[in-house]
Amino acid sequence: MRAVVYKGEYEVAVENVEDARIEDPTDVVIRVTSTAICGSDLHMYEGRTGAEPGIVFGHENMGVVEQVGDGVATLRQGDRVVLPFNVACGFCRNCEANKTGFCLTVNEGFAGGAYGYVSMGPYQGGQAEYLRVPFADFNCLRLPEGDEHEQDFILLADIFPTGYHATELADVQPGDTVAIYGAGPVGLMAAYSAQLRGASKIFVVDKVASRLQLAEDHAGAIPVDFSQVDPIEYIKDQTDGDGTDKGIDAVGYQAEAGDESGEVPALVLNNLVQTVKATGRLGVVGLYVPADPGAPSEEAAEGRLLFEIGKFFEKGLTMGTGQADVKAYNRALRDMIVAGRATPSFVVSKRLPLDEAPDAYERFDNREEGYSKVVLDPAI
Amino acid sequence: MRAVVYKGEYEVAVENVEDARIEDPTDVVIRVTSTAICGSDLHMYEGRTGAEPGIVFGHENMGVVEQVGDGVATLRQGDRVVLPFNVACGFCRNCEANKTGFCLTVNEGFAGGAYGYVSMGPYQGGQAEYLRVPFADFNCLRLPEGDEHEQDFILLADIFPTGYHATELADVQPGDTVAIYGAGPVGLMAAYSAQLRGASKIFVVDKVASRLQLAEDHAGAIPVDFSQVDPIEYIKDQTDGDGTDKGIDAVGYQAEAGDESGEVPALVLNNLVQTVKATGRLGVVGLYVPADPGAPSEEAAEGRLLFEIGKFFEKGLTMGTGQADVKAYNRALRDMIVAGRATPSFVVSKRLPLDEAPDAYERFDNREEGYSKVVLDPAI
Amino acid sequence: MRAVVYKGEYEVAVENVEDARIEDPTDVVIRVTSTAICGSDLHMYEGRTGAEPGIVFGHENMGVVEQVGDGVATLRQGDRVVLPFNVACGFCRNCEANKTGFCLTVNEGFAGGAYGYVSMGPYQGGQAEYLRVPFADFNCLRLPEGDEHEQDFILLADIFPTGYHATELADVQPGDTVAIYGAGPVGLMAAYSAQLRGASKIFVVDKVASRLQLAEDHAGAIPVDFSQVDPIEYIKDQTDGDGTDKGIDAVGYQAEAGDESGEVPALVLNNLVQTVKATGRLGVVGLYVPADPGAPSEEAAEGRLLFEIGKFFEKGLTMGTGQADVKAYNRALRDMIVAGRATPSFVVSKRLPLDEAPDAYERFDNREEGYSKVVLDPAI
Amino acid sequence: MRAVVYKGEYEVAVENVEDARIEDPTDVVIRVTSTAICGSDLHMYEGRTGAEPGIVFGHENMGVVEQVGDGVATLRQGDRVVLPFNVACGFCRNCEANKTGFCLTVNEGFAGGAYGYVSMGPYQGGQAEYLRVPFADFNCLRLPEGDEHEQDFILLADIFPTGYHATELADVQPGDTVAIYGAGPVGLMAAYSAQLRGASKIFVVDKVASRLQLAEDHAGAIPVDFSQVDPIEYIKDQTDGDGTDKGIDAVGYQAEAGDESGEVPALVLNNLVQTVKATGRLGVVGLYVPADPGAPSEEAAEGRLLFEIGKFFEKGLTMGTGQADVKAYNRALRDMIVAGRATPSFVVSKRLPLDEAPDAYERFDNREEGYSKVVLDPAI
Repeated sequence: MRAVVYKGEYEVAVENVEDARIEDPTDVVIRVTSTAICGSDLHMYEGRTGAEPGIVFGHENMGVVEQVGDGVATLRQGDRVVLPFNVACGFCRNCEANKTGFCLTVNEGFAGGAYGYVSMGPYQGGQAEYLRVPFADFNCLRLPEGDEHEQDFILLADIFPTGYHATELADVQPGDTVAIYGAGPVGLMAAYSAQLRGASKIFVVDKVASRLQLAEDHAGAIPVDFSQVDPIEYIKDQTDGDGTDKGIDAVGYQAEAGDESGEVPALVLNNLVQTVKATGRLGVVGLYVPADPGAPSEEAAEGRLLFEIGKFFEKGLTMGTGQADVKAYNRALRDMIVAGRATPSFVVSKRLPLDEAPDAYERFDNREEGYSKVVLDPAI
Repeated sequence: MRAVVYKGEYEVAVENVEDARIEDPTDVVIRVTSTAICGSDLHMYEGRTGAEPGIVFGHENMGVVEQVGDGVATLRQGDRVVLPFNVACGFCRNCEANKTGFCLTVNEGFAGGAYGYVSMGPYQGGQAEYLRVPFADFNCLRLPEGDEHEQDFILLADIFPTGYHATELADVQPGDTVAIYGAGPVGLMAAYSAQLRGASKIFVVDKVASRLQLAEDHAGAIPVDFSQVDPIEYIKDQTDGDGTDKGIDAVGYQAEAGDESGEVPALVLNNLVQTVKATGRLGVVGLYVPADPGAPSEEAAEGRLLFEIGKFFEKGLTMGTGQADVKAYNRALRDMIVAGRATPSFVVSKRLPLDEAPDAYERFDNREEGYSKVVLDPAI
Repeated sequence: MRAVVYKGEYEVAVENVEDARIEDPTDVVIRVTSTAICGSDLHMYEGRTGAEPGIVFGHENMGVVEQVGDGVATLRQGDRVVLPFNVACGFCRNCEANKTGFCLTVNEGFAGGAYGYVSMGPYQGGQAEYLRVPFADFNCLRLPEGDEHEQDFILLADIFPTGYHATELADVQPGDTVAIYGAGPVGLMAAYSAQLRGASKIFVVDKVASRLQLAEDHAGAIPVDFSQVDPIEYIKDQTDGDGTDKGIDAVGYQAEAGDESGEVPALVLNNLVQTVKATGRLGVVGLYVPADPGAPSEEAAEGRLLFEIGKFFEKGLTMGTGQADVKAYNRALRDMIVAGRATPSFVVSKRLPLDEAPDAYERFDNREEGYSKVVLDPAI
Repeated sequence: MRAVVYKGEYEVAVENVEDARIEDPTDVVIRVTSTAICGSDLHMYEGRTGAEPGIVFGHENMGVVEQVGDGVATLRQGDRVVLPFNVACGFCRNCEANKTGFCLTVNEGFAGGAYGYVSMGPYQGGQAEYLRVPFADFNCLRLPEGDEHEQDFILLADIFPTGYHATELADVQPGDTVAIYGAGPVGLMAAYSAQLRGASKIFVVDKVASRLQLAEDHAGAIPVDFSQVDPIEYIKDQTDGDGTDKGIDAVGYQAEAGDESGEVPALVLNNLVQTVKATGRLGVVGLYVPADPGAPSEEAAEGRLLFEIGKFFEKGLTMGTGQADVKAYNRALRDMIVAGRATPSFVVSKRLPLDEAPDAYERFDNREEGYSKVVLDPAI
């Protein structure tokens, strides 16, 4: 089968690889109908991780069941399903607590597994014609037959639940004001989720006009261009001087100040401490890592950042972090899509054949307009 | 009336001051029967704050209602009451949300007020014969008549609810394993609260043998002497290598490594990141401040510490912080004392006349054995 | 001042009564700008309660502060405010737990007080030119100056929070399916609240076409006319045969089957047991009473109804009931109105001068079209 | 293998039956080391259900893994495990929500399955030498090797989690007062759980002196003998006239008044409505059924009971019901047993060889002293 294979720094290729197949009785194999490129794939693409050449990329996957293992109870050939990017077992302590992003079974010695990602276990990615899905009864979310909502459903694999997770970590309640830093795909999904949960005012901070426009048009957000205004002051002005009830970090450690100072890893976190009210809560889904060789300082390279803990404590803030437990949310979000209450596909910029993956990676990595969220379709 | 007055660095005196009196119709004045010295009083005592000479100390207070304002609905002369250290109005946005530690009414320009504390509003302290209590219907917690449980009830003003707050921030559930750094009065109350909430294993980390002994005897805790063992390794060994479900910081920014390196402000926070499991939660009630002139570094002086955010995020941790909202807990804790389910007074080391306050402050500041929790009694 | 006075069965009159005035230092008096007639006023109007002639009606009130007691801390003459229908103290055990509908202070011997309602304490109603508000700092919710959103804000006194309370009791979550019995003003507000909270499918059951139309137009609901279809079967058909996740009773004990059988007091409750899924939750805000002389059976007259507890238990259902704790919700709902996220005034059918109250009561009691939610304005 | 087989009304026999074996790749077979007789087995034993002769009884089971299916990921021969009485799949909508008592996969057409119980699916019971366990990775809870705590661990299959579930449904919080009706094994486990969760006062209502004694000795409960005092009045007297915060029904529809009136199916429910405070919560784990041919009235035979809904609503009460979702609790309760924090085995009255099952059933059904909780051991 054809698949997107990592060849080395700044290089992927579409090549023939061994077919995905049933390895355990609880597996299924799906024929991939949509598979998306994610911002976190770029970390590997740019060679800033320990990923070895040969790995097949792709953790945002959906498709149709093609083969079914003997120990699978409820899936049948032809079922249309979407997979959480996290591979999870369904029965360990963390899965039982709906913390499927931190499964203790699927990736020995580490809490959490994923498809096609370095250090996340022995699971090939789905940027390919076929994909093996372990613990299939647990990991497959059933979808309505046909091809309706394809570009909405593919977002259930990662970024819609991840944006929603941010609002859950921040405990966004009806009537709340919320500040979201970052209007990339995840930030947009966070803003969209905040709107679905009844937030009264949503501020989205970024410097890219087209992203801010999407936030305004689709999530009813108030755009804040940090290259034009100080976001903390601007948001406080609009919230009686107090700041927002809740805050979301959808940027992470590669934050940039927008001037010549380059990356300022704790910038967004510390801005959020200033932006939210006393007693507020932060949801952090932008990535922070314990090891980053390319960091601007020795401490940052080891994941230690200068954090405004004094102010954080004085204000009595709470902060929740970590990758999304997709299964905790994907069922409800699917139902909202089916019922017409949610249409997250506004964030998808392009649908391309698998063969155009190398070009798409390059353009996405260059932040070219129109490549911020690419979905690959192995059938075209 | 007599009161403990701050005279300047390392000096307090018992002097005559103007009598406490009704200033607003919703006030009462109480005759103080017990008032405790708190570790946080030492910050002022040592001259490490902006406290001006003349302030009357004392935010842990209880007594009997002596005078009642016209606008007070339910209190009568003779009622025995205990007061939260936080002064709160009962009707602002934060009080309504039970965040009475962050009241927006009582201390203009700041979220939160207290008795006898610098920057916490114009409220005299209770280390005195009498105390004015604003918004009295809201701030007074009624106690059974008589003098039973006096030394348990006085702890409802601050440290028992503060210890309990730590377990609430960390979301300690029945069956949980919990690691608590710090076995001072607050750490002991956190351990005791964890036990009351059904924790299965409680680790308490300190280096003072007598404190560790109290934790073991009264909270069923497993003592961990960090001058003898590496607390992270020790606790992981006792929890199948995973670490605990929850963690509590009852130390704060004045943490010491126990060797010649002196204060290491982020030490306990970063130890906790290592000590708890992936998906764990931290409750931080040890103090962190946005301005500390005596800090070991320029960044620390401004409340910015090198925090292991990379590891924190990778493990998907959550952290809640801030001073306790005493009213959220004091009613239930009082009922536990009355019913005989809780006897927190094991932590009280001495009951002394008000006149001995100067001596008690000096000995407490020197960490003399037997002075870790002193209750003053103006009637003896 | 002029006020709507109860004269006896089926009779109210607008008469001069003694002026509202400050009675306690914590009172304010407001000049009423809007006051609504509520379905529950009809119980008194029809003589089915112990209400004595002379009582001034009106528990849905808003206006402008005119006089301020000495013990009031934060309100000033001219402040525009809306009052919860529940009178509450703010400091009793139940108020502290945000259960302000069950205040233990304001109505001796009973949990809960209200304006202008039999057995709910000595508080005159607000269908008048002026109204005394006790514990004013706690009971007044501040509104933006001016007269914008007047007909939205008046609904914050009762029915918008009551509808929202139903969704809270039923724990409506984003993505949920919800069945609501009753499309009167409260049922409509429940449907509207369910939509604001992100429900994916909302079914509203009634037999009045104009009400069902409002539910469809303003709450995105699926109308179910129980005079045309069996609502249980209809809803199950639309939810894969399972029924809805959550259910709401906005009808209460005066439920009618729609045929000649008259009132069937437990009809809606038992329908809900059939309508929701196993593990579902019911929110009951439709009124059930412990004494109803007009009931169709001796047991019903004492508030005992034949309830499908066998099926309820087998399905593992949960049920929350009771009048709304308005203060738990009115702040967030106000913010949603101000931000343009909520416009509940679609439910208001008419705005009339106070003098037309007698006519309005009569027409409302006759269920005349256009009188289902009347707001009285003492200034016109 | 030998097993306890139902022969017909009031008759069971120990007979040879076909060996338990692997039927699906995700099964294991365990060698049973302890299996308990449950009060709910008596419903079948007495012939008050549709159970057909031939069924093997036993839904409270533990043992050692003997055979392992190909699709089982984490269990190995020799692992010691305890099984929830509910059979569950781990991946359906309800299992995902931790509502494993209402699994949608294991018992077609019904929400929920169990071992050895009429209408609960095709699963043989464990009162036998061996037991087949479906979806074994999900259903087996691992225990420490050896035979320590055997009589504590066996209670994790049903009654300890069921008692705990009652406290969860009632939302028992530290400091709460709780009234529990019924001091059978489940009522005792509810009282014990309330104590573990920090309740300040626990009332247990029954008329059997030995049961009340156990409640007092092991759960710190205040015994209330309803043959001697009116439990409602007695409990109100001890709670300032208000009643308790929370209430638990551990009796169900076979409640007896204690006089000659026989069964009064809604007695305990309606007593609880009187016993708890306004705003209180009820947890109902005593059984109510939708069909009971032996009921004292036609309505009761169909599961409809005269319920005090008028008073229930006026007090704003909440009620949660249903069989326990054992998996939601068994892990934490196991950890409490291992850590020495919980020792529920005080409720076990006798350990007997499997062969004595017929005699034990007869004596248990006759309510003979010493047979209220019998554990069978197939190895003796």
